[in-house]
Amino acid sequence: MTLLKRSLAEALGTAFLLAAIVGSGIMAERLSGGNHAIALLANTLATGAALMCLIAALGPISGAHFNPAVSFADAMRGGLPWREVPAYWLAQLSGAAAGVAVANTMFGLPLFFISHHARTGPAEWLAEFIATFGLLTIIWGSVRSRSPFTAVSVAAYIVAAYWFTSSTSFANPAVTFARSLSDTFAGIRPQDAPPFIVAQFLGAVCATLAFVWLAPIPRDGLDPVLLPHK
Amino acid sequence: MTLLKRSLAEALGTAFLLAAIVGSGIMAERLSGGNHAIALLANTLATGAALMCLIAALGPISGAHFNPAVSFADAMRGGLPWREVPAYWLAQLSGAAAGVAVANTMFGLPLFFISHHARTGPAEWLAEFIATFGLLTIIWGSVRSRSPFTAVSVAAYIVAAYWFTSSTSFANPAVTFARSLSDTFAGIRPQDAPPFIVAQFLGAVCATLAFVWLAPIPRDGLDPVLLPHK
Amino acid sequence: MTLLKRSLAEALGTAFLLAAIVGSGIMAERLSGGNHAIALLANTLATGAALMCLIAALGPISGAHFNPAVSFADAMRGGLPWREVPAYWLAQLSGAAAGVAVANTMFGLPLFFISHHARTGPAEWLAEFIATFGLLTIIWGSVRSRSPFTAVSVAAYIVAAYWFTSSTSFANPAVTFARSLSDTFAGIRPQDAPPFIVAQFLGAVCATLAFVWLAPIPRDGLDPVLLPHK
Amino acid sequence: MTLLKRSLAEALGTAFLLAAIVGSGIMAERLSGGNHAIALLANTLATGAALMCLIAALGPISGAHFNPAVSFADAMRGGLPWREVPAYWLAQLSGAAAGVAVANTMFGLPLFFISHHARTGPAEWLAEFIATFGLLTIIWGSVRSRSPFTAVSVAAYIVAAYWFTSSTSFANPAVTFARSLSDTFAGIRPQDAPPFIVAQFLGAVCATLAFVWLAPIPRDGLDPVLLPHK
Repeated sequence: MTLLKRSLAEALGTAFLLAAIVGSGIMAERLSGGNHAIALLANTLATGAALMCLIAALGPISGAHFNPAVSFADAMRGGLPWREVPAYWLAQLSGAAAGVAVANTMFGLPLFFISHHARTGPAEWLAEFIATFGLLTIIWGSVRSRSPFTAVSVAAYIVAAYWFTSSTSFANPAVTFARSLSDTFAGIRPQDAPPFIVAQFLGAVCATLAFVWLAPIPRDGLDPVLLPHK
Repeated sequence: MTLLKRSLAEALGTAFLLAAIVGSGIMAERLSGGNHAIALLANTLATGAALMCLIAALGPISGAHFNPAVSFADAMRGGLPWREVPAYWLAQLSGAAAGVAVANTMFGLPLFFISHHARTGPAEWLAEFIATFGLLTIIWGSVRSRSPFTAVSVAAYIVAAYWFTSSTSFANPAVTFARSLSDTFAGIRPQDAPPFIVAQFLGAVCATLAFVWLAPIPRDGLDPVLLPHK
Repeated sequence: MTLLKRSLAEALGTAFLLAAIVGSGIMAERLSGGNHAIALLANTLATGAALMCLIAALGPISGAHFNPAVSFADAMRGGLPWREVPAYWLAQLSGAAAGVAVANTMFGLPLFFISHHARTGPAEWLAEFIATFGLLTIIWGSVRSRSPFTAVSVAAYIVAAYWFTSSTSFANPAVTFARSLSDTFAGIRPQDAPPFIVAQFLGAVCATLAFVWLAPIPRDGLDPVLLPHK
Repeated sequence: MTLLKRSLAEALGTAFLLAAIVGSGIMAERLSGGNHAIALLANTLATGAALMCLIAALGPISGAHFNPAVSFADAMRGGLPWREVPAYWLAQLSGAAAGVAVANTMFGLPLFFISHHARTGPAEWLAEFIATFGLLTIIWGSVRSRSPFTAVSVAAYIVAAYWFTSSTSFANPAVTFARSLSDTFAGIRPQDAPPFIVAQFLGAVCATLAFVWLAPIPRDGLDPVLLPHK
């Protein structure tokens, strides 16, 4: 696979992921009659289901990172070449923005409109660190088995983390950036994004350092894991 | 497998799929006390679960399309022979209608009664385009791995799309047609069906053209994918 | 495996299945504040999850029928020897009753107390026929792939059928009998059980006849399906 | 894998498990507006999803017990050497406490604060016996297939048991101990923990004795089960 095709797969997957997160948030808020637990249940279900099928479908092409912190961590441990990281990041960020634009438009809202949803403070920053630390732990642990269950594991982790972290687990810098572009259920104020993103990179780096020491990760870990029959 | 048997499997699967969509919509609306988010959660759960088990059970027989747009896209990329498309479409449409009749009857309603549920406008048409584009992306991406996870991936996609598209993701011309035959939760007015169906075919065609360029799809992609041990 | 051990596995599995159905019904009714959709969602989730893990764990021992109609259908198509059917039925019925007794006791209720929940009429009888027809279709279709996904498929089917049939899909004579022994959410009046059971056997027989014609089922279909590595 | 690394994997997994149980309980209680069924649904979903991905990711390293009763039962049947049991227990207990501290902190609560949630009486003790008996039955049944579905089976069992037991299925002495350290949704009064823990060990021992007689468990049962391709 050329870098161009892999980048397009990253962009496509991240776009659908963000459309799922933001779109289901809008739908859930409209239908749930003010019960935030029901709205978050629906948002969780849609996000987890989207993540599962996107990883299963696009993982064999690009590794299905959909997440700049995952691409960085993969480069750190010798997976993705560093020179390819910028292309992955660009694809993820532009795909994420496009996904939000599609979600907003499908629900009759402006293409982009800045969120006013405040998400800040040390407790939420800790939550983002923990959320991303856990995400990378699950990824590195799962890819060792080279099983298609990786897609289910990662999606299940995000389902859990939406509920067990006080920040509802963004755990992804591209997601954090793009969710600032929709003033709806899933939004975040632009000024609250940078500390989230710092916490996410820290969590990803710490988990990767810990895992590299704890158990060997196959060199070609992320990419071919979803092609068990090859 | 003869075309007759494969067509009967398509009819049977599409019938159960529609019974699940329409029947669970009726049950959900009756029990949910007016909270549409809870009703849609139940409808989503039942649809996704039905789709998963029907693809797993009938995929090895007919490919488990259950969807005229999927059969068309499969023919387009050289899978299903064009001469077999009419039999698949006929099976899917008649199965879908039969499934709605069964659902209506199980709940003590008339065999068929035309829906008055308005679903129209450019935002919903865009939603149907996106929903079907995503469905075919997931299908083409998943069948490349020849894994029984395809059934889970496709069901997970529909679970997500019920929530992230403003149209609740029909993404299937046979489903769209048949849902006009029940004036209940899942219904759609007959006059709103044609633009939905056009958007669905457009989405399926665009996704297939894009995927054929992006990554090779095995010639016998859809059909044997759920028989990993053969 | 001796018939004794297989029968004990059937009894154990059916006991846990009934404890899950009846126990989660009691819990759901107590917590849901009168919203029946939320109660049925919880009941559905618990039943589907229990069925999945019980089939995965006990399938390699006894085939994980947990259902007299399934054992009958399996005998019909040449799987389970007819002379073993009485032992399976006895195990399933006594296990089911034991499971209800455990559920009742765990929630501080009498060991057994007859249900007053009316479930009757042609629409619900049709629903039981359809529910069991679909169940056997999914079973016969799934076992052909000899994949451990069978446990997920069957559980997913029941999750869907709880919502898309007007009877909430008993689809199992042992379950029907035992649910008459608890006057709680999941109960059924004893006088309403016989027509349900007749409809269930009819559905199982028709689906099996249809499937035997439609696609070959491996001789040893049900039993070793969950031991893919043997 | 050295015992140190395996113990750290046990601590890490148990920490995330407890963070998921307690954290999602706090989030669910805050959002659900007093509807305990919705809160327990969210708590169930987060717990099951966390358990699934943690077993899949860490099972190949430590066996993913996360539960002193499971380690004891595994030693009983000749799996984990008895001399390693103390290290596993210590890891599980300290990991569990750390996970609760993280959950409390993420939600702006004190590191530890003793629960006042009464959970007592013979019905709940029976429930804990049954819950742990069932858990070990599912574990021993599932590991025989050496399939990565074990992670899904065990998680599915806990999802079901949260609803079908009157105690909401703690089924784990480390979880029981640690849940006394947070006065929130998932808490338990310290004085109620000992009888729960006794019932859990009894259930684990009885199920293991029964299963050893019922069907052979592979010697290396728990540990390598999630590495199917090795």
